[in-house]
Amino acid sequence: MQRKIDREELEPLATGAWILGTGGGGSPYSSYLGIRKVYDEGGHVDLIDPQDLADDDLVAVVSTMGAPLVFQERMTDPDLAVKPVRMMEDYLGRKFRAVMAIEVGGSNAFQPLLVAAASGLPVVDADAMGRAFPEAQMTSFAIADLAMFPHALADVRDNEVMVARSATWNWMERIRRKVCMEFGSVSATCQAPRTGAEIKNHSIHHTTSRAIALGREVRRARAAHEDPVAATIQAADGQMLFRGKITDVQRRTTEGFLRGTAHLAGLDGDAGATFEVAFQNEYTVGWRDGAVAVTTPDLICLLDSVSGEAIGTESLRYGQRISIVALPSPDIHRTPKGLTHVGPRAFGYDVDYVSVFKGSRGEIRA
Amino acid sequence: MQRKIDREELEPLATGAWILGTGGGGSPYSSYLGIRKVYDEGGHVDLIDPQDLADDDLVAVVSTMGAPLVFQERMTDPDLAVKPVRMMEDYLGRKFRAVMAIEVGGSNAFQPLLVAAASGLPVVDADAMGRAFPEAQMTSFAIADLAMFPHALADVRDNEVMVARSATWNWMERIRRKVCMEFGSVSATCQAPRTGAEIKNHSIHHTTSRAIALGREVRRARAAHEDPVAATIQAADGQMLFRGKITDVQRRTTEGFLRGTAHLAGLDGDAGATFEVAFQNEYTVGWRDGAVAVTTPDLICLLDSVSGEAIGTESLRYGQRISIVALPSPDIHRTPKGLTHVGPRAFGYDVDYVSVFKGSRGEIRA
Repeated sequence: MQRKIDREELEPLATGAWILGTGGGGSPYSSYLGIRKVYDEGGHVDLIDPQDLADDDLVAVVSTMGAPLVFQERMTDPDLAVKPVRMMEDYLGRKFRAVMAIEVGGSNAFQPLLVAAASGLPVVDADAMGRAFPEAQMTSFAIADLAMFPHALADVRDNEVMVARSATWNWMERIRRKVCMEFGSVSATCQAPRTGAEIKNHSIHHTTSRAIALGREVRRARAAHEDPVAATIQAADGQMLFRGKITDVQRRTTEGFLRGTAHLAGLDGDAGATFEVAFQNEYTVGWRDGAVAVTTPDLICLLDSVSGEAIGTESLRYGQRISIVALPSPDIHRTPKGLTHVGPRAFGYDVDYVSVFKGSRGEIRA
Repeated sequence: MQRKIDREELEPLATGAWILGTGGGGSPYSSYLGIRKVYDEGGHVDLIDPQDLADDDLVAVVSTMGAPLVFQERMTDPDLAVKPVRMMEDYLGRKFRAVMAIEVGGSNAFQPLLVAAASGLPVVDADAMGRAFPEAQMTSFAIADLAMFPHALADVRDNEVMVARSATWNWMERIRRKVCMEFGSVSATCQAPRTGAEIKNHSIHHTTSRAIALGREVRRARAAHEDPVAATIQAADGQMLFRGKITDVQRRTTEGFLRGTAHLAGLDGDAGATFEVAFQNEYTVGWRDGAVAVTTPDLICLLDSVSGEAIGTESLRYGQRISIVALPSPDIHRTPKGLTHVGPRAFGYDVDYVSVFKGSRGEIRA
């Protein structure tokens, strides 16, 4: 099924994608404004179900990569977003049938819409993370051991790099990250092209629709003066972890990432307790009173306690009143293979995966 | 004219190229051994005059780039040297007619011979520096404002990067340097492809032959128990700058380069004087008793006072007895445009070009 994305879905998509970004992927706001402008000028974007792709269709998988703090100053538009897609078409000598986000979390939910606005291609209702993660090897495609190249990067000047081959997914990440850093820690990408069959078998389906539905529910609760945090938990099958106030933020843009930690003091039922959360673009591990309470791949979401709006790692600041919520991750991330790619050790934490979800939501034993 | 390079020319080429390397480009020794092995197995390499290229012939311009200290541990062979050449042919959809060194100085004098051994292509008797320099924008092609892309890099694992476009020559250098660093500060390259017309008009001709002739003369003097340093000065129209002994070496592999300084105390006629020489892969500026005595683009060569063998920046050590010799640079480097690319300010030294050569060998006024 191919359908037009309604103008009224854009703002819910921004709200929902920002929550699923788990702090990373950059605020969707400026990209949302860019797409709203496309609609205001009479344009629109189509959404296509992954099952409607032919097995040999070629799909462009796109993102803005880099350090989210930089995205606030150097924004992406359709012209930049489509550059690496055109590079890839020239390189392959083939045209793409559709475009898809590498991650539905944060601003990258809108990246395929920006490409669609510049190219007319439909957007596939799927991604490779079901959220946001910072590195190339943290995708469902990498977990499935699909090819990691070629991979195109472009910046706003006139610099274009094609990583034509890489020895491993981690080498792909290392090389493209250094290029991205030299571009100024922000780059538009067109990642390894995917066939329709690969998308059907190895992407995470209907995540754009899921983000829109989540955002709609939060916005409905907000408008109805209900608790939008509770609405998120109910809509996404989540759990409340902590309510508190930020007492300290340490943050540095390093190695092409935004890394740091935030400390919170408890409020309400959590008064007297403390919570610390670490991030590498996205929130990765949480400690309650010094003990590990939650780790990636559970989605760790920091939400404004009043509005329910997601708080990105680049916009954390002293005094914010925050509700920390966990949402269950896609199944693929909780398999033993998945955990080697996106578990806490993949981020350098020498701890086992600690899920707040028991049974089928926790680790999947092979 | 196309002729076979004799086996007996290989060792003189290594000696001469190492002197013209002005400390950089890495020792030619291991690449020389690699080519000698090709000859021992019945192979050979042809040398072609640049004037014999057709205007629309396509020429591969190749190098090993990185920090010379690393070249001592990770050596280049024909299989690696030809990888970026094959990448470039695939990318362009065209075959090369010949192969050429980006720089005749150091190991890169042998890089096109390694490619020739793997591909059968003839080597053009020319380069783009007439010596060695560390950065992409320090070539006669850059000084002539020719296109700087595409530019292919490959490593020994299975990593291949194509810089498809770059905004400027300096952006090309910045991007490829970061890729090279991630490869381990060593990379095989195939630089922007050149037409026969570009080679004829904008390369520095007959530099392979010049390196062979210089090396022959040094080796002849050595065998005849004459002074090989004096033979270099006579053969290359040079000047003696200083005779001394190394008292201190500071050296660090940083940002993909080998940077540092060496201090010398005078001997013989220079007893009582001191000399300091700075390097970024190649020797860049020399100070006698604290005053600038010589700067790039004059070729600053540190030679073993007894054998006349060149001393690379990676092999400087305490106690070596050194003769510092200046050789005149190609004319193109001494033009006002050339000096913006390779003069002392291009290496971060806030001093004017100081040549030991007066008149036609010094700065060329536009």
